Amino acid sequence: MKKLFAEFFGTYWLVFGGCGSAIFAAAYPELGIGFAGVALAFGLTVLTMAYAVGHISGGHFNPAVSFGLWAGGRFPAKDLIPYIIAQCIGAIAAAGTLYTIASGKAGFVIDNTKAGAFASNGFGAFSPDGYSLQAAFIAEVVLTLFFLLIILGSTDKCANTNFCGIAIGLGLTLIHLISIPITNTSVNPARSLSQAIFAGGEPLSQVWLFWVAPILGAVAAGFIYKTLLQKNEDESAN
Amino acid sequence: MKKLFAEFFGTYWLVFGGCGSAIFAAAYPELGIGFAGVALAFGLTVLTMAYAVGHISGGHFNPAVSFGLWAGGRFPAKDLIPYIIAQCIGAIAAAGTLYTIASGKAGFVIDNTKAGAFASNGFGAFSPDGYSLQAAFIAEVVLTLFFLLIILGSTDKCANTNFCGIAIGLGLTLIHLISIPITNTSVNPARSLSQAIFAGGEPLSQVWLFWVAPILGAVAAGFIYKTLLQKNEDESAN
Amino acid sequence: MKKLFAEFFGTYWLVFGGCGSAIFAAAYPELGIGFAGVALAFGLTVLTMAYAVGHISGGHFNPAVSFGLWAGGRFPAKDLIPYIIAQCIGAIAAAGTLYTIASGKAGFVIDNTKAGAFASNGFGAFSPDGYSLQAAFIAEVVLTLFFLLIILGSTDKCANTNFCGIAIGLGLTLIHLISIPITNTSVNPARSLSQAIFAGGEPLSQVWLFWVAPILGAVAAGFIYKTLLQKNEDESAN
Amino acid sequence: MKKLFAEFFGTYWLVFGGCGSAIFAAAYPELGIGFAGVALAFGLTVLTMAYAVGHISGGHFNPAVSFGLWAGGRFPAKDLIPYIIAQCIGAIAAAGTLYTIASGKAGFVIDNTKAGAFASNGFGAFSPDGYSLQAAFIAEVVLTLFFLLIILGSTDKCANTNFCGIAIGLGLTLIHLISIPITNTSVNPARSLSQAIFAGGEPLSQVWLFWVAPILGAVAAGFIYKTLLQKNEDESAN
Repeated sequence: MKKLFAEFFGTYWLVFGGCGSAIFAAAYPELGIGFAGVALAFGLTVLTMAYAVGHISGGHFNPAVSFGLWAGGRFPAKDLIPYIIAQCIGAIAAAGTLYTIASGKAGFVIDNTKAGAFASNGFGAFSPDGYSLQAAFIAEVVLTLFFLLIILGSTDKCANTNFCGIAIGLGLTLIHLISIPITNTSVNPARSLSQAIFAGGEPLSQVWLFWVAPILGAVAAGFIYKTLLQKNEDESAN
Repeated sequence: MKKLFAEFFGTYWLVFGGCGSAIFAAAYPELGIGFAGVALAFGLTVLTMAYAVGHISGGHFNPAVSFGLWAGGRFPAKDLIPYIIAQCIGAIAAAGTLYTIASGKAGFVIDNTKAGAFASNGFGAFSPDGYSLQAAFIAEVVLTLFFLLIILGSTDKCANTNFCGIAIGLGLTLIHLISIPITNTSVNPARSLSQAIFAGGEPLSQVWLFWVAPILGAVAAGFIYKTLLQKNEDESAN
Repeated sequence: MKKLFAEFFGTYWLVFGGCGSAIFAAAYPELGIGFAGVALAFGLTVLTMAYAVGHISGGHFNPAVSFGLWAGGRFPAKDLIPYIIAQCIGAIAAAGTLYTIASGKAGFVIDNTKAGAFASNGFGAFSPDGYSLQAAFIAEVVLTLFFLLIILGSTDKCANTNFCGIAIGLGLTLIHLISIPITNTSVNPARSLSQAIFAGGEPLSQVWLFWVAPILGAVAAGFIYKTLLQKNEDESAN
Repeated sequence: MKKLFAEFFGTYWLVFGGCGSAIFAAAYPELGIGFAGVALAFGLTVLTMAYAVGHISGGHFNPAVSFGLWAGGRFPAKDLIPYIIAQCIGAIAAAGTLYTIASGKAGFVIDNTKAGAFASNGFGAFSPDGYSLQAAFIAEVVLTLFFLLIILGSTDKCANTNFCGIAIGLGLTLIHLISIPITNTSVNPARSLSQAIFAGGEPLSQVWLFWVAPILGAVAAGFIYKTLLQKNEDESAN
């Protein structure tokens, strides 16, 4: 049960911090933090929660990560559903808090005819820079695949796990530095779901891609890591 | 006594560096550091002082942190008042130094009819982006709550304490990336008090919120951590 | 063989993340990440892969690094060619993926008459800020020399190797903060080759400099480190 | 002798990277790195060299740091002069390299009638934002004082020295985030001297302040740390 609370709080913080920085601070005139600041914020949500509650739940905060660790042989299948439910509840609770705060500014509305409304993800006309469905799909698969390679490699028993919170958190920053203009960056189905629910309309109807592509990339990473990169039991025993 | 000196110097540095970067460098034409630079500066004040004097005093530099650690069972009630006094003296001394340096530029005045004057916190007409009292209150509670979860979790006996300076410092950076437009970001009553004293006027009359909300969030975090996340004595003994 | 896969994935990620952030996100109107964001992205590709696969292959991801480690007596000559081939294949595969994604935006073309086309490196008219061949050559030699001093020093048996992923990754960020306006920053022949192949034209005909200068700087660093900085066997045995 | 080479290379890199990023990349149109990027660059020069050669020489790269460590009882007086000479030679060599590269852009001249010419430090009319001599003096004293508190504290035998490269490097980043508009940020007499020599004119005649104030602040920090913060021999022996 402590594990599910840890996943709830961690995913809440990921959405509150990452999407919140995008909603409140990215486009502030002259002094706004821009895409680079949002990228840093997303990464720091994971870095901070990895050190805060990572020792409790493993620190997934992301259904694709749970799937990828399962594919890599590091996470039991029976825990997949409870983890994903805790993550989605945390994400939606955070989006609700963001909505409440955002409503405290005069004239606030979510205009779901525009790309990135309420920090939602999208492709085609709902990609921030107009990238096609195919480009968005490839980007989300490749980025989530490497996100999981970073997670699997840095937490491997052969590697130094104390540093993995830094590597994984800043890895998520890097992913956002690359791809906010393409899809507003998901690599995390829970984060996409929560924002799409509040945005509604076309962003909600596009949310399927941000479940399929990240989970596909994550599962691929699990198999790639096991097959091509992981040391054999025998080797690591030496 | 060494502990109180450590809290004095740490809080001095937090205000001098965080508020100083906002006052001197945020809005410099073309090359200014913006909100993202200020967010980084606040976080780095805590990161650097955590490694410099954290081993002496625990490195609170913030009355809300002292309250939250007390609520979490990590800090004795009898030390609360001395710590908070040392923190407030440090913050006010730093604000005085900032005032002296800022006065060395021709035409310097504090215009306390505008939001964020002398890096003060505020809501309503004194929120940088016009957020209501209610929105400001919720934001400060939630942000301080998570700040304390990061602190309590990363310094827990089960976690890796060597990394906690990085997690906590960058956690404060993250908090500023989200919320400078909402309240100019407090989560620290000492930092709010020192700037409000020098700003005077409406910013000073609003300073109550930046004592009540952060301490409320911090105390809530202490109870949440103990109840929902912390391992039992028995478990951690194994 | 695992080593070569590690170099393939690491160099793929370096090019996909570093050049990808430049192509997709650097110049996005108002909110783009700029040169500083690209510098951070390049560094984080190396930081993340150092923790992910560095324990497998040593984490070079760069022919100049392999040469420099060889010159410093840390890498066997017989592995040079296989490593460099794996690195170049990874870089070219990443450039191909970037091309596919970039083509998903209406109106995408590579204009190889302009500096920095498809994140290619260049000098003279193909330097982002118009620096001469001589200036570009000196910059690439000096920057790669210090990149290798950082690598050789931080991974030395006398130093703390657990932190080397941070030092080396952020060292690459620093190098980009200095020199994107000069050459669009190479210090990595594989990264220059992959982008030049897709850009073609003059950028491709200038790619020789980004093999010669970085390797020259790297080899010089190997000898400087051995001669002037490294502790003697006898000293370190004490 | 290895120690002096380490100080030479470290200070070379500090000036080449920090001042180089300011000269080449800060004000590039639209995409330039601004003061925040320069602040990051200065900090990363120290972070990277601390891990690369810090185990050889202690990693000062700055005459004020050598003075401060002497005042704090951590550095022998007899090594002060050789260290400072090695630092100044390294800084001047780096400035020379920067001059050579900068000259490779058509139309390059150093206009020493403007603040910050060739990344020089200054006050009054030569302060980037017009701060007086008094304000500049106070800022340099306070900032160097805290820089040394960070160094003395994080490298104290009671603290975790493995993290000190991160704390000290990012501490220098923080110092630049605060004070580039005030003095163009020195806290390092060697860095000020090298740029003033190449700039000449008024920037050279102001260089005295950037020797006196940083050394004063550093020496004050040494005494403050010993007196108010450092644990007694007896305490730390327990």
